[in-house]
Amino acid sequence: MNVINGGVTAAQGFMAASCAAGIKYHGRTDMAMVYSKKPCISAGTFTSNVVKAACVQWDMDIVKNKDFLQAVVINSGIANACTGKEGFDACEATAKGVEAALNIPYESVAVASTGVIGMQLPVDKLVAGVKAMAPELKDTIEAGTAASKAIMTTDTENKEVAVEFEIAGKKVVLGGMSKGSGMIHPNMCTMLAFLCTDINIEKALLQKAVSEVVADSFNMITVDGDTSTNDTLLCMANGLADNPMISSEDADYETFKEALKYVCETLAKKMAADGEGASKLFEATIVNAKSKEDAKKMARAIVGSNLSKAAIFGCDANFGRFLCAMGYSGADFDQDDVELFFKSVNGELKVFDKGTPIVFDEDKALEIMKADAVTVYVDMHEGDKEATAWGCDLTYDYVKINADYRS
Amino acid sequence: MNVINGGVTAAQGFMAASCAAGIKYHGRTDMAMVYSKKPCISAGTFTSNVVKAACVQWDMDIVKNKDFLQAVVINSGIANACTGKEGFDACEATAKGVEAALNIPYESVAVASTGVIGMQLPVDKLVAGVKAMAPELKDTIEAGTAASKAIMTTDTENKEVAVEFEIAGKKVVLGGMSKGSGMIHPNMCTMLAFLCTDINIEKALLQKAVSEVVADSFNMITVDGDTSTNDTLLCMANGLADNPMISSEDADYETFKEALKYVCETLAKKMAADGEGASKLFEATIVNAKSKEDAKKMARAIVGSNLSKAAIFGCDANFGRFLCAMGYSGADFDQDDVELFFKSVNGELKVFDKGTPIVFDEDKALEIMKADAVTVYVDMHEGDKEATAWGCDLTYDYVKINADYRS
Repeated sequence: MNVINGGVTAAQGFMAASCAAGIKYHGRTDMAMVYSKKPCISAGTFTSNVVKAACVQWDMDIVKNKDFLQAVVINSGIANACTGKEGFDACEATAKGVEAALNIPYESVAVASTGVIGMQLPVDKLVAGVKAMAPELKDTIEAGTAASKAIMTTDTENKEVAVEFEIAGKKVVLGGMSKGSGMIHPNMCTMLAFLCTDINIEKALLQKAVSEVVADSFNMITVDGDTSTNDTLLCMANGLADNPMISSEDADYETFKEALKYVCETLAKKMAADGEGASKLFEATIVNAKSKEDAKKMARAIVGSNLSKAAIFGCDANFGRFLCAMGYSGADFDQDDVELFFKSVNGELKVFDKGTPIVFDEDKALEIMKADAVTVYVDMHEGDKEATAWGCDLTYDYVKINADYRS
Repeated sequence: MNVINGGVTAAQGFMAASCAAGIKYHGRTDMAMVYSKKPCISAGTFTSNVVKAACVQWDMDIVKNKDFLQAVVINSGIANACTGKEGFDACEATAKGVEAALNIPYESVAVASTGVIGMQLPVDKLVAGVKAMAPELKDTIEAGTAASKAIMTTDTENKEVAVEFEIAGKKVVLGGMSKGSGMIHPNMCTMLAFLCTDINIEKALLQKAVSEVVADSFNMITVDGDTSTNDTLLCMANGLADNPMISSEDADYETFKEALKYVCETLAKKMAADGEGASKLFEATIVNAKSKEDAKKMARAIVGSNLSKAAIFGCDANFGRFLCAMGYSGADFDQDDVELFFKSVNGELKVFDKGTPIVFDEDKALEIMKADAVTVYVDMHEGDKEATAWGCDLTYDYVKINADYRS
């Protein structure tokens, strides 16, 4: 597997466009469209929030009940959540706009929105945006990058990644883009992520691979503990790589799943590191736990704790906060088995040794914690299961961004 | 029932003392002792965190297995959590110091600590503190107030309350004190709270009343979502009011429970309003929910959401965040049934009406949200159960306090 340049347009047959539709932001793009020349099978994972945005409900229907997905229209600025019937009408109008512009059935058009909840979308602007983007669709890397920028809200960087790998002598490509960066505590999926591949695979296996990989990547990141109403991951596969159809969990399936894992983990870590106000990536790795489920609970609790996040911001090796978070995570363990380390590119340091605090070198701890990415590494000594979760630090800027997000 | 001045020394037979033991803070008191002239029956609730501080384990044993509790020694600065065997030894040494100074069995002495996790207590200083406090025990209101100040960490105000009520012609008093103000997301109990009453009641009924009242008061507050390793509530009852023994859930029991509810709710709200960095009290009330459990989940999720808390800080009527939090709380409901209001002393405003956002007067919303206490009031229209939770806003100061708590 090789990492290559690009994102949603990296795989054969995928095109993208973007525009400034003036939905809420000014002086920047705020709509994107991804289109496949050939109809795709699709897989998706969606928010577990019972308050689901209109677009989430629209897309769930497509992934579950429709044979094909051929285009996705995404807007930033307004989330189309808590918008009642008018919100659904906006989804349909947008999809019908694509039908008119590209001559594909509107039931094969997914829609995704991100931004303020509880505000109606300006449907006229969306439809005009679709009409403007349709003739501008391009299969270049630049078009994919522009799309990844149009879907940003409080993100400070666009997020895309692509890989190529071989299946039965055929080159297969998988590329994707995602956006954060607040209300990030995915449970079923991440905020918004779109993966495009030319692989030839059966729909049920595509969904299986996506669900399994999302559970260990996007579902293991958190910025603020708030599971959004809009979390959506869509994966489109158009089969243009022409590899022999993958129809069982064979070696080819595993090759694809490895690539999918790399792409999802890369996008997930980018989202965590670019969390609202974040100054650094905060990683928690639990090893030798009794169960995978316990390892995941503890890793997520550590990166999700406000107190832990504030300590990471302050480069304060206040390890008791991490043990405290593990303790309330719902996992069962004995603190007398636990070893806890801080790690970064600047070194590593053990601070807690099987129930007893270690008197450690504060200067060394500070040096380790000053890095752009800091890991809390915990050896449970109670089993052989492990998990990693990703988050970010809690900063003044997080408060600033969110104290007046609507204005 | 009348609210009266005082706290832990308000009821007959209770005395308190405090001192500056130099455990971690300088230039302030950091130890307190509460003592009853007559041995008390006790009840308690403790953290659900599997990482329990040494003192929590010590106190759980007393409440569960010992006949009497007669004194409590509390220190601030160091939490005695994650401290292994040395931590237990510190509890025992402190209790034995009380035995030597006051001639009561050390098994009737509870200990409680709050502060930094993962640091050993200076036992010599604790024992010296006990020795210094013993001859200074007084039953005055001032002595109780001084004790409530000695147990503060990042609290900006001490917290105490007392009430008197009548049972069978006898005056009964219940007083208490508590402290916050970070790592506050109690689950079984609050950070530290001590209640002293002269009521005559059977131990099992005292525990029942305490457990039930704590579930709707201390367990319904949150500051930062972090359930501490040290949460402890202890209630001491010495019987000196001389009311006929309460031995069934009769009208007298209900009278006591009402008083207990007032005291716990008052202390809990004080803790929420004085959360680390908080500028205001943030209350969420859910009415007409399908079940009490769902109502509690939703109310807690609203006041626990970082995004909601930041919006409250910024006086931003961004109601979608509250609906989002309800949606991921684990409660089941239909957003099309929901009405959502903002309320404060400055008025009230409906912003969401059964699935549809309302275009509201932003100036009026700002006026309402500028108050020192803001309520999000949600009518579910799906049943007749209700719950209220209390928290605070998320401010720059929260980050500042916690980015370098140890220094």
